[in-house]
Amino acid sequence: MARRRSTGVSEATTQRLSLLLRSLRELEREGVGSVSSSELAERLGSNSAQVRKDLAQLGELGVRGVGYRVPELRTRIEGHTGLGTPRTLVVVGAGNLGKALADSPNFHSEGFRIAAVFDVDPRKVGGRTRTGVPVLDAARLDAAVRELGAAIGVVAVPAPAARAAADSLVAAGVKAILNFAPHAVGPYPGVVVKNVDLTLLVETLGARLAASGA
Amino acid sequence: MARRRSTGVSEATTQRLSLLLRSLRELEREGVGSVSSSELAERLGSNSAQVRKDLAQLGELGVRGVGYRVPELRTRIEGHTGLGTPRTLVVVGAGNLGKALADSPNFHSEGFRIAAVFDVDPRKVGGRTRTGVPVLDAARLDAAVRELGAAIGVVAVPAPAARAAADSLVAAGVKAILNFAPHAVGPYPGVVVKNVDLTLLVETLGARLAASGA
Repeated sequence: MARRRSTGVSEATTQRLSLLLRSLRELEREGVGSVSSSELAERLGSNSAQVRKDLAQLGELGVRGVGYRVPELRTRIEGHTGLGTPRTLVVVGAGNLGKALADSPNFHSEGFRIAAVFDVDPRKVGGRTRTGVPVLDAARLDAAVRELGAAIGVVAVPAPAARAAADSLVAAGVKAILNFAPHAVGPYPGVVVKNVDLTLLVETLGARLAASGA
Repeated sequence: MARRRSTGVSEATTQRLSLLLRSLRELEREGVGSVSSSELAERLGSNSAQVRKDLAQLGELGVRGVGYRVPELRTRIEGHTGLGTPRTLVVVGAGNLGKALADSPNFHSEGFRIAAVFDVDPRKVGGRTRTGVPVLDAARLDAAVRELGAAIGVVAVPAPAARAAADSLVAAGVKAILNFAPHAVGPYPGVVVKNVDLTLLVETLGARLAASGA
């Protein structure tokens, strides 16, 4: 989790900057021009020292007594981290998890476009998710990923099918894989892979519970 | 992620031990009596030095030339970490994500029982998920959580409803919250909270992609 990115910003810092960016977009929509580190901290449920520390990595930004200019800060974070770069995603697996991810209201607002969901089930192919994402035949994955220019592939299939799904996505040219199957995939050369095992999250929580005496 | 548990095992080590435990259970089902660190490493896509390092935290276990006795190692990991302790879970939110979590085949095999899903939608209440988990009225959450003895509550509702859902679960006595809404909840005194923001995972992946030059 402490993996360093080539810009020298850790994954944990990137996550905090990402949440900060959401707050800044909200403030812009509300028409707020400037904001202090303590106001930002309050929105984030963080503290102002942490906010100032994270922002200090982006260079000189705040004006004493005025705080941070909201649009400038947003642009600076986006430029420095690559957060907010529009990306096209595809999801493999039109089960409940795949549909939940495809229809998540937040992806769209953060600049991500879910272009398609792939499935092998002929009863699902040709349909659409609740928010209108088309369900395409997994046999057409390679051509469709290339046509759509998808950079990120999300794997939301049962464990035994995970590796094949990830292999197909990589062969079709995606540059990042987010895998939710309880079976790690990768590594693939030149591809960023993140394995998110939901069962493991619950197990780890259970262990923390045991450690706390419950 | 580097949070120390009271047993002195980090969350990252707990996650690795949890995956190890899965492999040991598979080996037991296959009737395998003993296993070497390199065989375990191969199953995990890890390396044998890491496996030996993680297991060294549990005390003397391996026998030179024989390796680890599978059932003994499983019991030792379970006893040391609290992994494998049976836990009852409830899920709040019977949308796609809530159903995906409730029906996940892995929770059951790892000793977790999903006892109920709660929802406010009268069209969903009274039904069951695909694997038979009952969908109960969210208005009955407090009484049901107490009756079921649920220790872990999973929040799978839209962001604006997340805090209220977590508050209700804590009031009903759960000792751990796993929150999937894109809105952090907690902290609550004496309750273990893990916020898992799926959009944030994709954003962080996008930023890593930008850092890698894609």
